[in-house]
Amino acid sequence: MTVDTDRFLADLHTLRGFGAFKTGVHRPTFSEVDMRARHWFVDRLREEGLEAEIDGIGNILGRNPKSGPHLLAGSHLESQNEAGWLDGALGCVAALHLAASGLPVDVAVFADEEGHYGSFIGSRSFTGLLEEEEIDRLANRYHGKTLREAIRDAGLEGRPRLAVERDRYKAFLEMHIEQGRQLEGQGLKIGVVTGIVAIWQWKITIEGQQNHAGTTTMAERRDAGLAAVRLLAAIDQEFPRHCGERTVWTTGRIALSPGAPSIIPGRAEILFQYRDVDIEVLRRLEGVLRRCVAESNRRERTLATLEALSLSTPAVSDAGLQEALAEAAEALVPGGWQRMPSGAGHDAQYLARVMPAAMMFVPSINGISHHWTEDTSEEDLATGMRVLAEGARRVLAG
Amino acid sequence: MTVDTDRFLADLHTLRGFGAFKTGVHRPTFSEVDMRARHWFVDRLREEGLEAEIDGIGNILGRNPKSGPHLLAGSHLESQNEAGWLDGALGCVAALHLAASGLPVDVAVFADEEGHYGSFIGSRSFTGLLEEEEIDRLANRYHGKTLREAIRDAGLEGRPRLAVERDRYKAFLEMHIEQGRQLEGQGLKIGVVTGIVAIWQWKITIEGQQNHAGTTTMAERRDAGLAAVRLLAAIDQEFPRHCGERTVWTTGRIALSPGAPSIIPGRAEILFQYRDVDIEVLRRLEGVLRRCVAESNRRERTLATLEALSLSTPAVSDAGLQEALAEAAEALVPGGWQRMPSGAGHDAQYLARVMPAAMMFVPSINGISHHWTEDTSEEDLATGMRVLAEGARRVLAG
Repeated sequence: MTVDTDRFLADLHTLRGFGAFKTGVHRPTFSEVDMRARHWFVDRLREEGLEAEIDGIGNILGRNPKSGPHLLAGSHLESQNEAGWLDGALGCVAALHLAASGLPVDVAVFADEEGHYGSFIGSRSFTGLLEEEEIDRLANRYHGKTLREAIRDAGLEGRPRLAVERDRYKAFLEMHIEQGRQLEGQGLKIGVVTGIVAIWQWKITIEGQQNHAGTTTMAERRDAGLAAVRLLAAIDQEFPRHCGERTVWTTGRIALSPGAPSIIPGRAEILFQYRDVDIEVLRRLEGVLRRCVAESNRRERTLATLEALSLSTPAVSDAGLQEALAEAAEALVPGGWQRMPSGAGHDAQYLARVMPAAMMFVPSINGISHHWTEDTSEEDLATGMRVLAEGARRVLAG
Repeated sequence: MTVDTDRFLADLHTLRGFGAFKTGVHRPTFSEVDMRARHWFVDRLREEGLEAEIDGIGNILGRNPKSGPHLLAGSHLESQNEAGWLDGALGCVAALHLAASGLPVDVAVFADEEGHYGSFIGSRSFTGLLEEEEIDRLANRYHGKTLREAIRDAGLEGRPRLAVERDRYKAFLEMHIEQGRQLEGQGLKIGVVTGIVAIWQWKITIEGQQNHAGTTTMAERRDAGLAAVRLLAAIDQEFPRHCGERTVWTTGRIALSPGAPSIIPGRAEILFQYRDVDIEVLRRLEGVLRRCVAESNRRERTLATLEALSLSTPAVSDAGLQEALAEAAEALVPGGWQRMPSGAGHDAQYLARVMPAAMMFVPSINGISHHWTEDTSEEDLATGMRVLAEGARRVLAG
């Protein structure tokens, strides 16, 4: 096994040219430039001796002719709009170079992890969790083109969707940028991912009474905006008392209706989410949230209701795979790594449902992601590639 | 002096026909239907023997040929969008019927009190507080047509703007619906207005750091939305300790950027206002607000800044006029009236700068205003008309 990190970096830079935007890329799923990137990647897989094709949902599978046991490795090729050059691309090119190094690794590129059309449609299709009916109704969240049209325009119509051959693989590995600043902040080079957090996303709606901001006394008001502030302040008080060590919670949106300076808001809509790797913590925080909403309805003359928008399941990394990656990291960067959860969702969480899966992080400069300034030093990228390859070797040998 | 309340009500119902919308009216400033209503009103003034014209800003002045001392009375004719039939119209038609009853009353209709193009442009023009430069830059807040174009299309271009003849008038009187439920709630028929609140309108901007809601730990965050919630919760705690008896305060809008479920808000914009008739209370609350913002900047890792959008001056009703209206109310509806501030702004606040001014309220059913369901019973309208006329008679005699 020999990893050529110069060629690995060269491939990353070539890929950066597809949809280059400032120092990042703009490569939305199934755009013309995204499809060119996919075809280039298929060509590269074939150059390395893999049998590669794009399937009917846009996934790429490169099958390694070497005899098994095999590993599967990969990530996604499309980007968020005007985003970074490494998010997803890193894991794909790293998987390519695992195969190029001589290891019996199949390479997978999962379509639309970034959610231009849906939620993890590539990895869900590959693991048998995406129905035709869902494909029928999905459309691009930015410009509304249907997924069926996009698949047709990408030249993929009529192709079968590939399904995972569970018996073929010993494990799935995904390398990714951290998208946070934990590694950088501690001067570490590698994160061995213990699990991928679940996101529990809620909509809180508060109904009050729209009224004139001058002629309605404070005592008469049923102010949905004020009730929203008090509820969110209560959540801010209660959550730290019940959360886990690495739980995060976020109010991403507060919309008051009608939103005019001199009108008491009659309605408030709040988008609130929390994330954790531990299902018990997620359930406990649901209880806290429900109590805060009930308390609001006892105190206020408004009606708050809670609606679950999505409640995903945490994905725990396989212990043996974690150990192999940890040993590889300790061998190549002694003391320069840590175990850590992934706060973001990744394709690996769906692969974890059908085989042992694990992830490995490299540092993100300033923790920036989903922005064109996202970056990682070439030295850290090369170190990550070497650790991943050593980890893969240990998994196959184990 | 004889007030014909049947004709008064008949005129109100005729006016309701201009731009009828459900049970209310849709009569935006300078719309075709608004101009037809203005011309109809000029005709009615002339029928009652007044010399009437529309000036270059859309104001109507009906001069009474009777010898002085004169009173001035009036309000506005345009409506908010899809709003009520009485807001403004009531004060204009009441002024017309003061003149029709034989009193030496001039009638004024002030353009655009409802602010389709600007802030009180009619009464400010009449009282010498509107410059040509402001007219040059104003445009319709809903559809963007410039005020100059609207004036030209209304056929008013080139007409002079009328200015108040201060020496001609003893006082200004404006009758209006309450737009609240204080009178109705206490079974009262008349409100003698003690003053018109000032509105101090602020924009609070909070700058944080936009970031990934999954990969950024709670300790690392600079969450502008959370800082906004904490600041508004602090204001909610502090204001009741320092406000006046009838102070009201309102957060009409909270906008978090970018407003996505999985992104920590990097910026928050808040529209916050308070209203009171007492300048000392307004100043005290500014101090409280500034302390809350300073406290936020001490506690949070975000930067909150405060910008005054408008700081108006409270208008206090003339004591002698209040007394005349109070005596009239007590004579006609003994015990059925109260003194009260106006929580909304009115043209009278600008007239109060150039002559003694006062206002009188009639009840609003369910306190509704700025909505097509706004209403007042015909009995209460007629009672109001009779009290206003009796009050005007006392002012002229006093």
